[in-house]
Amino acid sequence: VRIVGERINATRKRVAAALERRDEAFIQAEARKQAEAGADLIDVNADARVGHEAEDLRWLAEAVQAAVELPLCLDSASLEAHEAALKVHRGPALLNSANAEAGRLAALLPLAKEHEAELVCLTTGESGVPQNAEERVALAHQMAEAVSKAGVPLGRIYFDPAVTAVATAGPAGRDLIGAVRRIRSEIPDAHVICGLSNVSFGLPQRGLLNRTFLAMLMASGLDAAILDPTRPGMMPTVRAAEALLGRDDFCLEYITAQREGKLET
Amino acid sequence: VRIVGERINATRKRVAAALERRDEAFIQAEARKQAEAGADLIDVNADARVGHEAEDLRWLAEAVQAAVELPLCLDSASLEAHEAALKVHRGPALLNSANAEAGRLAALLPLAKEHEAELVCLTTGESGVPQNAEERVALAHQMAEAVSKAGVPLGRIYFDPAVTAVATAGPAGRDLIGAVRRIRSEIPDAHVICGLSNVSFGLPQRGLLNRTFLAMLMASGLDAAILDPTRPGMMPTVRAAEALLGRDDFCLEYITAQREGKLET
Repeated sequence: VRIVGERINATRKRVAAALERRDEAFIQAEARKQAEAGADLIDVNADARVGHEAEDLRWLAEAVQAAVELPLCLDSASLEAHEAALKVHRGPALLNSANAEAGRLAALLPLAKEHEAELVCLTTGESGVPQNAEERVALAHQMAEAVSKAGVPLGRIYFDPAVTAVATAGPAGRDLIGAVRRIRSEIPDAHVICGLSNVSFGLPQRGLLNRTFLAMLMASGLDAAILDPTRPGMMPTVRAAEALLGRDDFCLEYITAQREGKLET
Repeated sequence: VRIVGERINATRKRVAAALERRDEAFIQAEARKQAEAGADLIDVNADARVGHEAEDLRWLAEAVQAAVELPLCLDSASLEAHEAALKVHRGPALLNSANAEAGRLAALLPLAKEHEAELVCLTTGESGVPQNAEERVALAHQMAEAVSKAGVPLGRIYFDPAVTAVATAGPAGRDLIGAVRRIRSEIPDAHVICGLSNVSFGLPQRGLLNRTFLAMLMASGLDAAILDPTRPGMMPTVRAAEALLGRDDFCLEYITAQREGKLET
């Protein structure tokens, strides 16, 4: 599973402050910490100061890639921010995110095509977040069609079925598991990614719920996840699930992680 | 998910010793500990002294049911032991186990029918443990047919797809997940149970692998598990998975477990 480290997000106060005072040291430490923990990409979100998203994301992207040799997940509501950051980004970025609203996917697809970038497609539409698996799968199919028409390979698409809180809707978790399974089997060339942490909103011991949900989703076909790899127990669950799914030859990565003390929970 | 507590098994030296000297206090403490941790049934296995299985299992069953108000999973290779224990067992027992070998299922079905007991049907046949999901599902169908012919309702059957070690065969975990999903969807009236711990044989941090595997199997339809509920982290994973699968109304059991300090990992 590809791990997108979520810590560098301007909705966190300390990140917003570091961004405003251009505190490279803080940002780069956050990046290194996640890379060391096992992140495959670093998410960067600079949507804090209205009107400054483009220059802020561009600065963030440069600061992070100066510290770690990883691709970034460029995370913004602003098309201009994506454009600005792509100008300085090295390697193929992951753009986060399009959705099924009119205009949003159409605006991001040409950018993804031009830069050979990957693209997160959130299964939300004009009427917001879907209520069930059926609607999520339908939106994924609708977007897959637009992606193919635009000439972008489905292998570069990461569908995000939009995790919601299990505390407010009992079937939310089961629906999500069903949506992941169906999208992976009905659009096999594309990937499925989730931001996990919404699932545990409003409940205690959120880390326990988040990592248990991750294991359940990985068993259902999830192949990328947006999470905080520095949280206790999270990467041990990832290593265990990879070994259990037969994606870790002879369990060597698992055994190595244990020897390095990285499976402590 | 129904939890079958596995600690009272004569393959454990201390249990075999307690059994031989009829140490009721030790056995009953093991039973209470598991009931308190959240076991729904207590597994009792007395297959230590050849020729004494029947009297030993009968004694175990009485000792355990004198301590806890739970049904037992009567676990023996000996038909006589099952018969003897059923004579003293209160409530509907779970018989563990039949398999697809000639004679074994035919011998246990009349007993299950007579006592209205539930029955574990292990998907192993004359040639031992299956190599893939396909063979497991085929054996389940074969046994389901015999069960129905014998007039035993499928709702009393727990198919056990026979977990094997992921360290010796990379695809073992993935196969098992596929087998659980297919048996649940193709024989929807029956249940699926697994003994988890074989999956982690030969690897470090077995608890981490076992509980991660449990979450994955629960997402795939597993509705009973044979495990040690006193192991750190195991029942927290069960509570989290139940909440995530929408089987815990308003997450009340999860929240209660947290308040009682039972979600510590």
